[in-house]
Amino acid sequence: MNLKTSPLAPRNFPDMQPIKGVKMWTAETGAKYKNRPDVWLVKLAKESRVAGVFTKSTAPGAPVEWSKACLKKGAHSGIIVNAGNANVFTGKIGQKGVRDMAHLAAQKIGCKAEGVYVASTGVIGEPLIMNPIEKGVQGIHLANENCSWQDAARAITTTDTYPKGSTISCDIDEVPVNICGIAKGSGMIAPDMATMLSFIFTDANISREILQKLLRKFCKTSFNAITVDSDTSTSDTVLLVATAQASHAKIMDIHDPRLKAFKKGLKTIMLDLAHQVVKDGEGASKFIEICVSGAKNKDAAKTIAMSIANSPLVKTAIAGEDSNWGRIIMAVGKSGEKANRDQMSISFGPYLVAKDGCRALDYYEDTLIKYMKNHNLTIHVDVAVGSGKFKIWTCDLTHGYININADYRS
Amino acid sequence: MNLKTSPLAPRNFPDMQPIKGVKMWTAETGAKYKNRPDVWLVKLAKESRVAGVFTKSTAPGAPVEWSKACLKKGAHSGIIVNAGNANVFTGKIGQKGVRDMAHLAAQKIGCKAEGVYVASTGVIGEPLIMNPIEKGVQGIHLANENCSWQDAARAITTTDTYPKGSTISCDIDEVPVNICGIAKGSGMIAPDMATMLSFIFTDANISREILQKLLRKFCKTSFNAITVDSDTSTSDTVLLVATAQASHAKIMDIHDPRLKAFKKGLKTIMLDLAHQVVKDGEGASKFIEICVSGAKNKDAAKTIAMSIANSPLVKTAIAGEDSNWGRIIMAVGKSGEKANRDQMSISFGPYLVAKDGCRALDYYEDTLIKYMKNHNLTIHVDVAVGSGKFKIWTCDLTHGYININADYRS
Repeated sequence: MNLKTSPLAPRNFPDMQPIKGVKMWTAETGAKYKNRPDVWLVKLAKESRVAGVFTKSTAPGAPVEWSKACLKKGAHSGIIVNAGNANVFTGKIGQKGVRDMAHLAAQKIGCKAEGVYVASTGVIGEPLIMNPIEKGVQGIHLANENCSWQDAARAITTTDTYPKGSTISCDIDEVPVNICGIAKGSGMIAPDMATMLSFIFTDANISREILQKLLRKFCKTSFNAITVDSDTSTSDTVLLVATAQASHAKIMDIHDPRLKAFKKGLKTIMLDLAHQVVKDGEGASKFIEICVSGAKNKDAAKTIAMSIANSPLVKTAIAGEDSNWGRIIMAVGKSGEKANRDQMSISFGPYLVAKDGCRALDYYEDTLIKYMKNHNLTIHVDVAVGSGKFKIWTCDLTHGYININADYRS
Repeated sequence: MNLKTSPLAPRNFPDMQPIKGVKMWTAETGAKYKNRPDVWLVKLAKESRVAGVFTKSTAPGAPVEWSKACLKKGAHSGIIVNAGNANVFTGKIGQKGVRDMAHLAAQKIGCKAEGVYVASTGVIGEPLIMNPIEKGVQGIHLANENCSWQDAARAITTTDTYPKGSTISCDIDEVPVNICGIAKGSGMIAPDMATMLSFIFTDANISREILQKLLRKFCKTSFNAITVDSDTSTSDTVLLVATAQASHAKIMDIHDPRLKAFKKGLKTIMLDLAHQVVKDGEGASKFIEICVSGAKNKDAAKTIAMSIANSPLVKTAIAGEDSNWGRIIMAVGKSGEKANRDQMSISFGPYLVAKDGCRALDYYEDTLIKYMKNHNLTIHVDVAVGSGKFKIWTCDLTHGYININADYRS
């Protein structure tokens, strides 16, 4: 299937520099895709520390189980990712497949298999054929260190229409450090992470405990605050690697003030990557920010925002550039969370459309029609019962989604 | 918008006889639709008893609030329904609108306004304009008793592509009684009843308490076991009316053995109407039965079945006639309910596709391709942790859904 680049794609892939302590390569195995890299191999400096967050699916893929075990043991030698086959629900063959991949990578980069994280993305339920992956990895020339970040980002895509990367520099204790991240994902995107893979690297010298806490915290408002189609993948994996190659003293306390700029930078990158995933939502033509306020608490606000973001009726109305706020009311009502119908208010961008239980007095259809033509839309809903707030990002539901998904496997 | 009749529609509207004690009329108000009835007025015999079930939306329409109050007071004089405007989120004007409609109907049929149930369906958030409805109702000739059931079913439709009716006869204590029901609904259909209106009438002589209990019970496995798009409406209403005109002695005990055939008949009609709603699901090309077994309990089975039925990835795969059972695994996994991944099994119709955590040995793609071309499909999933079972009915997600909903309001 030839997919047109999403109209919401960033203009360029960012200019991303290598991270000290990260060596990486890609291979073209031809297993499913032709003329593109589909395997990505990473070797990490031995001082590296890795943090990870995984799908909450109760039927996770074999690679997720493997990588969770790696994380538990503090593995930090390498990463291997293949695109085209998710190696999910493949029984014992799948478990052998993931072990074989780890061994293959370990042999190539010179470490133990237990030190290598594995991630797979693509079709579910098909047995993983190792032969082409084996040939691909064995064919890598280790001397050609460091493929570009763009190549790496491309190697892990499936139905993505553009590679996703984000980078930022900041100081820790006056020493410059870099953060580079890549991500893939465009369908099966929903809270708890969807068919989403993301790998973020920094040369900062930070304890593993801090990395894990920061990753978990920032996931809540980035990768776990997006939804394309409410479907949650069996393969979601986000890894954060710090290679500890920067020359500042190791940071051991999460409240250390020297960490301030790094925290901000990491949060920014994670949000940027999460937004890029939504902007590549299958068939997406609009990027929508949904802000819910006035809810009982933060969780209630998130439930309401997700109910709006996942409503097919809301998403199709937006695809049709229709400010059909009645469907927002419906979605608030079906969320099950407390809302004060007679004091609720709804705005589209700067325009108040509903207030105090009915249409706003200064509601002008023409202004709204014009607003709805924008690529980026904001919907704000205040449910008037408390002070809980949450923001969710999503996209619209178009013919493109049906085209891609009625036809993806074959 | 001109909609083609759903390919899943029954061949004919059933031959439905009048129910003794029910007089009814329709009117063409022209308020939104042209050249079709859009108001339905019902006068009930004074011995009638009414049971009702309503949406659980926390932002229900004014008519739902009105009718709930009617039910509480045991109202049983009449019903008025309009199509085209749901009178939801219309503030005080909406509350006045529903009072006005009840008064209008009451004046016409000669009763108190508090005795008249009101239901409205259509666009949300637009103020209800009473003038055309008033003219329409006043123009009804009471002497022309009893419009046909088909006319009544037509008068309450919105984006429905066919009128929905169902009828059955049975005996109570050797006296023949009839049950006739109509329904509307095609989008915003989800458990807890969606934009679904249904009105069921019988001449049986049964206590109000029994009616209410039976309605609530059978709703669980009919109207509340269907989903088109996971969206729940603000207006759902199901009323069950018994006019008590049949000559058998009044039934006062729900366990009375004389009620056996009636219970079965009512259940059959409710399931038939619910299925007809799904078969008219916006853009539907496949009618899908999803049976989940082996769950922790019945609720868990329902949650898993709904997760499958509402998954856009599952629904688009089926639209593409692709037996992509990997997406079923995904939907089971995201449901959050316990499932034994390594002992789970999945069948499409009679064909086992997955077993013991991987693809079934006798899985033949060609057989599946042929099976997926059917209009009626059954998917059975056993999650291998307990004995909880539930059945859900849904339809696929096609370009037709997008066409209708990116464009419905304008």
